[in-house]
Amino acid sequence: MSDSPPRGAARTEAIMRTTLELGQEIGYAKLSMEAIAARAGAGKHTLYRRWPSKGALLLDSLLSLHRSSLDFSDTGDIVADLRTQMYAALDLLGNPPFGPLYQALVGEAQSDPQVAAALNERFITPQTELTVARLRTAQEQGQLSPDFDLDLAMAILSGPLYFQFLITQEPLTHAYADRIVDALFAGMGTP
Amino acid sequence: MSDSPPRGAARTEAIMRTTLELGQEIGYAKLSMEAIAARAGAGKHTLYRRWPSKGALLLDSLLSLHRSSLDFSDTGDIVADLRTQMYAALDLLGNPPFGPLYQALVGEAQSDPQVAAALNERFITPQTELTVARLRTAQEQGQLSPDFDLDLAMAILSGPLYFQFLITQEPLTHAYADRIVDALFAGMGTP
Repeated sequence: MSDSPPRGAARTEAIMRTTLELGQEIGYAKLSMEAIAARAGAGKHTLYRRWPSKGALLLDSLLSLHRSSLDFSDTGDIVADLRTQMYAALDLLGNPPFGPLYQALVGEAQSDPQVAAALNERFITPQTELTVARLRTAQEQGQLSPDFDLDLAMAILSGPLYFQFLITQEPLTHAYADRIVDALFAGMGTP
Repeated sequence: MSDSPPRGAARTEAIMRTTLELGQEIGYAKLSMEAIAARAGAGKHTLYRRWPSKGALLLDSLLSLHRSSLDFSDTGDIVADLRTQMYAALDLLGNPPFGPLYQALVGEAQSDPQVAAALNERFITPQTELTVARLRTAQEQGQLSPDFDLDLAMAILSGPLYFQFLITQEPLTHAYADRIVDALFAGMGTP
C-alpha cells in the first residue's frame, strides 16, 4: 500500500536532509530554495507550499537534527543533569552541520522578524519550558535555591553560551560549560 | 590656522554621524558606502581609505556614540555599580540609533569574520577589560566571592542581555537587569 501521507513525510525528510547537506557544502548565503529543490528532485512549489522561506526550511531541518538530543535527563542530580544538557547544547552549537548553519540562521533572525519568531516559537520556547520544568523539580527537591528566579533560567544558562557562540566566537568546550554551571550555582557574591 | 588633521577629524566625525542618520532612516540592509558618501558630501574613496566595509564604518560610528557611556563607575559598591552599568548597556541596546544598527551589525558578524573580529577587538575586548578590572577591585575588597571566576564575568553578565537582545528579542528593561544581577550574586544553589 502506498498511501500519500508516508510518501509526503519521506519527501519532507528528504528535502530537509538535502537542505542540511547543501547548506554545509555551500553555506547559508548561497543556499536557495531553487538549489534545494533541484538537488532533492522536488518542485520548487512543493518547498514553498510548506516553508515560506529558506530560513523557515533551514530551521525545520536543523530541528529535525536535534530532536531528543536536547531533552533534559533527570537523574535526580540537578548539577549533573545541567552539565549533561549544557554539553549537549555546546556539542550541537560547536559542530557542523548544526553549528555553522544555526549561526547563519540566528544572523538572519537579526534582520528577518519571521525567522526570529519561528526560532523562538519552534526552538527557544520549547527548550525553555523543558529547562524550567527540570529546574522546578530540583527546586521542589531543595537542590536549587528557593529564591532562584526560574523565569531567568534560560537566559542565565544559555546566555553565556550564545555570547561565546555569536559574539566572541571562541571555541565552545565542555570546560567552559563546567565553569558556567559552577559559577551560576555558587553565585558571584560572598555568602 | 587650518591645518589638515582637524579638518580630517571633523570630516571623519561628519561621515560617522551621516552613517548613523542614514542607517536609522533606511536600515542597515539598504545602507551603502555610496549613499553615505553622497549624503556626507565626501568621495567614496575617502570612506574606503579609512573603512574597508560598511560594517567597519558602522562599527566606528556606533562606538563614537557610546564612548564613556559604558565606562564603569566605582562608587565602592559593586552591586550598585554593576546595576548602573547594566542599565547603561540596556539603554544602549534597547534604543535607536544604537540598538537596531548594532543588532544588524551583530547579524552581519555571523557571516562576515572581519566584522566579527572588529567587533571583538574594538568593542567587546575593551569592555571586558573594564568589567574585569572593576570586579577585581571588588573581589580584593571582599565584595565578591574570592572564588568567582573573573574570566567568565563578561559572558555571565552580558550573555543574558545578548540572549534577550538577539534571541528572544523581548524588550530590555531595567527590571530585567536587576533580576540578572540579583540572581548572579545570590547564585542558583542552596548555600
